Order: sequence, then structure tokens, then C-alpha cells
Amino acid sequence: MSILLSRKNTQRSLYSSCKLAFPLLDMEIGSASDEKAGLFARGWRRLKAFSENFNANVVKVAKKIKKLGQDDPRTFIHSLKVGLALTLVSLIYYFRPLYAGFGVSAMWAVLTVVVVFEFTVGATLCKGLNRGFATLLAGVLGVGAHHLASLSGEKGEPIILGIFVFLLATASTFSRFFPHIKARYDYGVLIFILTFSLVAISSYRVDEILEMAHERLSTIIIGSVTCIVITISICPVWAGEDLHNLVALNMEKLADFLEVFGGEYFIIAQDGANVVVSKDDNPFLQGYKSVLNSKTSEESLANFARWEPGHGRFSFRHPWKQYLKIGALTRQCAYQIEALNDYINSEIQVPQEFRREFQQSCTKMSSESGKALKGLASAIKTMTYPSSANDHVENSKTAANDLKTTLKAALLENTELLQVIPAATVASLLIKIVTCTDKIAESVHELACVANFRRVDTNVTPEKPQLRPPGTVKPLSDTDGPHVLLTVCGASLALAENENPQANMACQAHGSVNIC
Amino acid sequence: MSILLSRKNTQRSLYSSCKLAFPLLDMEIGSASDEKAGLFARGWRRLKAFSENFNANVVKVAKKIKKLGQDDPRTFIHSLKVGLALTLVSLIYYFRPLYAGFGVSAMWAVLTVVVVFEFTVGATLCKGLNRGFATLLAGVLGVGAHHLASLSGEKGEPIILGIFVFLLATASTFSRFFPHIKARYDYGVLIFILTFSLVAISSYRVDEILEMAHERLSTIIIGSVTCIVITISICPVWAGEDLHNLVALNMEKLADFLEVFGGEYFIIAQDGANVVVSKDDNPFLQGYKSVLNSKTSEESLANFARWEPGHGRFSFRHPWKQYLKIGALTRQCAYQIEALNDYINSEIQVPQEFRREFQQSCTKMSSESGKALKGLASAIKTMTYPSSANDHVENSKTAANDLKTTLKAALLENTELLQVIPAATVASLLIKIVTCTDKIAESVHELACVANFRRVDTNVTPEKPQLRPPGTVKPLSDTDGPHVLLTVCGASLALAENENPQANMACQAHGSVNIC
Repeated sequence: MSILLSRKNTQRSLYSSCKLAFPLLDMEIGSASDEKAGLFARGWRRLKAFSENFNANVVKVAKKIKKLGQDDPRTFIHSLKVGLALTLVSLIYYFRPLYAGFGVSAMWAVLTVVVVFEFTVGATLCKGLNRGFATLLAGVLGVGAHHLASLSGEKGEPIILGIFVFLLATASTFSRFFPHIKARYDYGVLIFILTFSLVAISSYRVDEILEMAHERLSTIIIGSVTCIVITISICPVWAGEDLHNLVALNMEKLADFLEVFGGEYFIIAQDGANVVVSKDDNPFLQGYKSVLNSKTSEESLANFARWEPGHGRFSFRHPWKQYLKIGALTRQCAYQIEALNDYINSEIQVPQEFRREFQQSCTKMSSESGKALKGLASAIKTMTYPSSANDHVENSKTAANDLKTTLKAALLENTELLQVIPAATVASLLIKIVTCTDKIAESVHELACVANFRRVDTNVTPEKPQLRPPGTVKPLSDTDGPHVLLTVCGASLALAENENPQANMACQAHGSVNIC
Repeated sequence: MSILLSRKNTQRSLYSSCKLAFPLLDMEIGSASDEKAGLFARGWRRLKAFSENFNANVVKVAKKIKKLGQDDPRTFIHSLKVGLALTLVSLIYYFRPLYAGFGVSAMWAVLTVVVVFEFTVGATLCKGLNRGFATLLAGVLGVGAHHLASLSGEKGEPIILGIFVFLLATASTFSRFFPHIKARYDYGVLIFILTFSLVAISSYRVDEILEMAHERLSTIIIGSVTCIVITISICPVWAGEDLHNLVALNMEKLADFLEVFGGEYFIIAQDGANVVVSKDDNPFLQGYKSVLNSKTSEESLANFARWEPGHGRFSFRHPWKQYLKIGALTRQCAYQIEALNDYINSEIQVPQEFRREFQQSCTKMSSESGKALKGLASAIKTMTYPSSANDHVENSKTAANDLKTTLKAALLENTELLQVIPAATVASLLIKIVTCTDKIAESVHELACVANFRRVDTNVTPEKPQLRPPGTVKPLSDTDGPHVLLTVCGASLALAENENPQANMACQAHGSVNIC
């Protein structure tokens, strides 16, 4: 019994890290066969727990993968494309005649595919072209440096080469800090330093430097071309199209907020001060938050879009810069909404005397601005003139004027000023949002002009004739020829830097026509 | 003469692209020597113009380089460091015994330096460690894949290898879309794909695959270590320190705006509606704009800061996440300021009846919030408890209450409601900014608690005893031991995810002590 107990103690210390072990051990005293069975059962249970845990983790990861794949199936397709491209360039190794031609340099094709293949066509083109041209230029300079250095004899060569590499690497690295170079040629400069260093330094040891440079350049070209062909031919993801959709989506997010805001805000106002609207439950009230930080992604998409050839509805020199302008205005509007959002849950009481009018005007301003933004977003998406949005912009402006009249009328009453302040702030921010929406509309009109958006039939809403409000754009004809901007009632449209010279000339020629 | 004319004609056609040529030619008829002199003069003039143009461009670029170097001299030092690192690793080629040891694999050291050497220590460490571990793991897996594939015979090997590469590249590329992996291990996954593909594919042709993998790994380690040693030992740029300074600088920018705003706004109010303040002339009114889009840079700096060892005043597990929290609150405040900024040039008339009180309260709110933010920024910079900021936060709150009293008093007058609205909005936004500043102060106190900021003597402002306002942090003792949070008057401080377990335990243990 004492042996058994000491054995038990040893076991207890052995398994002390496992909480499950103790109750099992306590029940096992007195029978060796029971103990064996117990050990087995314990082992089995642990294995089961581990496998259950493992299964749960696998299921969790699988769910995450599925969600990611469902959210954007293009990510999965992109991964397959990378796998395909790599497998294709690895054929160089497998086929003897190909390998005989390139030798060890074949690895540069593999390396190029791994680092050049990016999610969007624009990014892949940017990297591929940067890599190709930088390798060519640096290769030529590297061979030149080797030639110069070799003139200085066996001893002087490494010193001269070292100085060349140091100077060129320092200067090129410094050039990467210039914003313009950073934005477009950062990768090219990196590859330039890399290739120059490799060619110049290894020229000291490798004799057939020209052959090596030639082999390397051809494999890099093979890698880049494989990437570019695969990325364009199989389900291409265009940076330009993504930018186009992102800008429209961001507008829709603001529109969602504005359409819901009026209702949410005045629920509190009617029921008293303490009703708290749960903002988190309403995705429409939260969606705009992502717009606040959209600058980086918009800029990088616009940057890559410039490298892309014409595709689908977009020509090669589509005015991508104008999207950045619209994006900036949309963010401006989002900042106002962020300030407005703080008032949803604050304690607000609109004085009884002018609540109804105030409520009506505010709700109308908010929802009409929302509808205008929705209209503008849909116009961008369908690439048609945003004529339907004009009415909503005008309606929101009218509502803003109504509000002013309401407030003027409220003057006659002895309203409680302190209570009015939050409401007045909401009204004031809404007026700013209306102004902002108007600016966005103007900017979308500019885009429609310079990008030759399609004119839709004016009878789309048969119940109401399409009025052309002041400050909007009217084309000269319905053909696809150049369009003009008519600035009406002094609302002059400042044209952004235009990438379509034909349309630009037409726009500028008529840009100052003022008909009232 | 006819010959001369025909010659002239030939010349005319030769130089027809140059506008300068014709008047000169017209004067030259009849004298060959004159013509020669004219040609010379023309050439000289062109050369002069070219050299002047060239000089002007060189001066322009030089000025740009000088400005960039002066704005941040670290960019220049970084470039020199890259040059030095490259020159150092190229020594492997120049010294025969070293080259004999590594052979062609020496190029991986050069390649590693070019792609791993980043501006900050954290980014370099992140890339270097990612590269090292990914190469090791992928190398082992690649050798394993080669072993497995070789079992299937000469014909089956390339097929099995191709399938391995395809599957692994697809799965790894897909994993890069997960935000968590993207943020920390993106480069590692890229290198993993690269190395696995290279090892697995080239194993089909290269016999000494283990030796190759070993050589490659050692040269990559040499490259990474060179980068890390140089980046840490020569004028290191720490991502953590940059984040620390950026967060403080952003607060200062908001403070600059708030300190100036009161004055700028009421210049208009006093002089009438039409005085336009030129915002562009006043850098203090524009500086905050960069804060609006600071999220990306803050997040990437915090991401790199985690890789850095302890340095200067920062320990290895410094609570970098808390900086992101403070940064987010600062941006929140910047959004309110962006809304407020629109009112500087709008037509505002504060009714005569309560202008003085209104002006006083608003200016005080604005400037005291500004001073509080300056105090908090300076506390972060010097890593001391932000006790001096507390007074200003309290002052701004008092001013907000004064404003409410002022407005209540104004009720008795028959004020023009419509005129009040913009002023009321300004007041309302300022009240929000005061709330925001209070939140930032709380957040900085949390940072001071978890990062063990130094306690300064309480007699820093001798003319006024340092009162501890409600809702602030008080340490248990003045020693460097763990500090506690006392939540006073119901203002409970929510602790951020804490990276300092000792301080965290102390903070949590006392976190709910409520003394009133």
C-alpha cells in the first residue's frame, strides 16, 4: 500500500500540470489493472480533447478562410493565379532545352514572379515595368562601371567598384525620399540599386559578365511578361475600376447615414431627452467611418490606375485625378457627418414652438442630400450624366432655405435659447453638408464632362420633367463629341487637371460662358 | 549666287526646326565668312542657352535636395548607411577566402541588404527577422519536398514538385490577405514562397541542394545582421520614438489651431461680417489638416515599434497600443476642428447684447483647450505626469459652464435667433472639443500610468498650487513602483490593453476605487 501510495505521489507530481489528472488518480487506488485501464482512459480522453480542440481550431480557421473568400472572391482567384504563374515559370527548370539556355539564371524568373505579381493589374504592371527598365539601365551602367574599374588594374578594381557602389546606392536611396519618385518609381529605384550592385560587384569574380547580364535580363522579362499576361487574361482586377467603385461606394455610405439620420435624430427629440439610439445596431450610422481614412487607398489605387491600359469602360487616359478630387470632397463631407454624429445621442430638446417645421426641414435636408449622393454614386457607377441628382441637390437647398424661414418665424416666439443651441448646431452642420453635397455634385459633373459620360434620356422619371438646375453641366450635343461646361448664375466650374486633351479644350473654350 | 541660294535653301531646310535660324540666315547672304561666324555664334548661343538651362535645372534639383536634407537630415544619413552596408557585404566578393566559402551565393547577401535595409530600426528588424526565419522554414520544407518528390522517380518528380509549388504558393498568397498576417508577416510570407519555390524547383537540377540551402541561409543571415548592426549603431531611427513624437506633434498642431482660433474668429465678429481672414497666411490654422490623415502612418509606426528592443527612454514592451488610442482621440478632435474651421470665414454676427461674454467664454474655451493639449504633448515628450494640463482642462470646462450661463442670461434679451445660429454652432463645437480634450487627457494619464512616466515636483507653478481635478490619475507613491488609477467622481478610466503586466495588475487592482 505504501509503495502504491508513493507511486501515486510520483504520478501526482508527474501530472500535476494537468488538472484533469487528480480526480482520476484519486479513484484509482487499490487495483493495478484498474490503473492501467485508467491510464488508457486518460490518454484517450486527452487525445480526444486535443483532437476536439484541433478540430475546433481547424473549423475556426476554415470559417475565417470561407468568410474572406466570400467577402472578396477575387482574393482566392488571385492566389490561384500566383500559383499558376509560378508553376509556369518553373517549367524553365523542367524542360532540358530551356534550362540549357538560361542555366542558373532561371531562378530570376521565379524570383520576379513572386515579387512582381500583385493584386491589381496596375500594380503588377507598375512593378513589372519598373523592374524591367531598372534592370536594363542598371545592367548597362554596371557593365560600364566594371569596364572603367578594370582599367585601374587588379588592385585598384575592387576599390573603384566599391566607391561606385557606395555612391550610387547612397544617391539612389536618397532619391527614394522624394515624394514624386516614391509614389511611382520606388520599386524601380530599389531594383536599380540591386542590379547595379550585383552586376558591378560580381563582375569582379564572374568573367562572362555580359552573358550573365543578358541571361538575367531575359529571365526577368520572361517572369514579368508571365505575370502581366496571367493577371490581365484571367479575371483581371483593375485598380482603376476599384478606384471608380470605391469613390462611388464611399458616397453611398455617406448617403446611407444621411437618409437614416433625420429619423434617428428626431426619435429622441419627440420622445424626450433620454432615449438612447444604439448606433452600433444600425450599420447605416457606422458605415461612413471608413470614409474618414480612405485617402491612402484612394491615392494608391489612382497611382496604379495610371499604369493600366484601357479596359472595359475606361480609356487609357481616363481622368483618375478627378476621382481623387471627388474623394477629397467626400471625405470633407464625412468630417461634417462625424461632427453631426455626436448629436445623435446628446440630450436635445427642440422647443415645442417650432419643432414640427424644424424637424421637417432638417429631415428633408438630410434625406435629400442623401438621395443626391446616391444619385451621384449611381451616375458614377453607370457612367451616365448625373441629371437625376440635380433635383435632390435643389430640394436640399430649398429645405435649407425653408429652415431659415422657420427659424425667422420662431424669432417671434420667446424660445428658450439654451435649448435651441444643439438643434441649431445640427441645422448648421446640415447646411454645411448641403453645401458639401453641392460641391461633390459639381465635381462629378466635371468628371462626367472630361470622361465623356453617357447621356441618358431625359424622360427617366416620367412623373416629373427633368429641370436643369443652376450651376450644372450641359453638353452641346447628344453625340459622343466634346462637351462643354456652361456656368450658369455665376457658379463657375473650376476644371481639374485634365487628362483628356480633346474634352479639356472644349471644356476650357466654353468654360467661361455665363448666361445670366 | 544661285549656288549660294540653293545652299542657303539646304541650310534652311536643315535648320527649319529651329526658329532662331531664319533671321540669322537672312542676314548672312553674300558673305561666306560672315556665315561661318554666324554659324559659330549660333552654336555658341545654343550651347550657352543649353548650359544655362542645365545649370538652372541643376540648381533647382540641388535646392530640392538641400531642402529635403534640411527638413529631415536623417534621410541623408540613412542613404549613407545603405551605401556603407552594401560596400561592407560586397567585401565577400573582394576577399578570396570569403568568396571561396560562399561562391555565387554571396549575391544573396547583397540582395538582402538592398531589400531589408529600411528607414527605421523596427522596419529593418521586422524585415530581417521575417526574411531569416522564412528562409529557414521554407528551406527545410523545400528540401523535404525535394526528398518526397524524388521518391516518385525521374518522370514523376517534376509533376510532384509542380503540384507542391502550386499548392504552397496559392495557400501562402491567400494567407497574405488576412489583416493580422498582412500587418506583421507579409514580407515573411513573400520570402517563404520565394525560397520554397527556388529550393524545390532548383533541386530538380542542382545536386548539392543541402549545401546550396546552407550557403544561401548563411549569406542571408550575414546580410540581415549587417543591416541590423549598422541601422542600430549609426544614428538609429527608432519607429517607437517617431510614433511617440508624432502623437505629441499632432496634439501640438491642434493646440496651435485652438490657441489662434479665438482671436481669428472674433476679429470678424467685431469688424462686421465681411472681413475675410486669409487662412492660408496663418500656418497655425492649417497645420491640423495633416492630423486628419495620420492613421496609416501611426499604425505602421506602432507595428514596427513592436519589433524594436528597449532604447533610450522606451522599454522593450512599451505600451505602443496606447499611442494608437491617443492618436485616434486626437483625430476625433481634429474632425471637430475641421467642422469648426469652416466658420472662420463664414458671415457671422454675434448679437451685440451678449457678444462680450460670449466672446470671452469662447476664446477662453478654445485657448484653454489649446493650452491643455500643449501641456499633454509636452508631458508625452518629456515622459512626465501631465499634471500641468489638468488646470487647463478644468479651466476650459469652467469656460464652457460660463458660456451656458451667458447664454441663459441672453435669454432675457430678445436676441435675433437667426443671427445666433452660427455663433451657437461655434460654441457647440467648442464644447465638443473641450470634451474631446478631456478624453485625450484621460488617455494620456493612462499612458503615464502604464508606461511609468516620471513624477515631476508639484511645485512647478509656484504661484498656483497644483489641484488634482476630478477624473485624473494619482499615483500611490512617488517611487518608481506600480501606480494606480483612482477614479474620482464616477469618471472611470477604461484601461487599454496593457503591455506592462506589473503596472497593469496594480492599475486593475485599484481601478474601481471610487472615492465619491
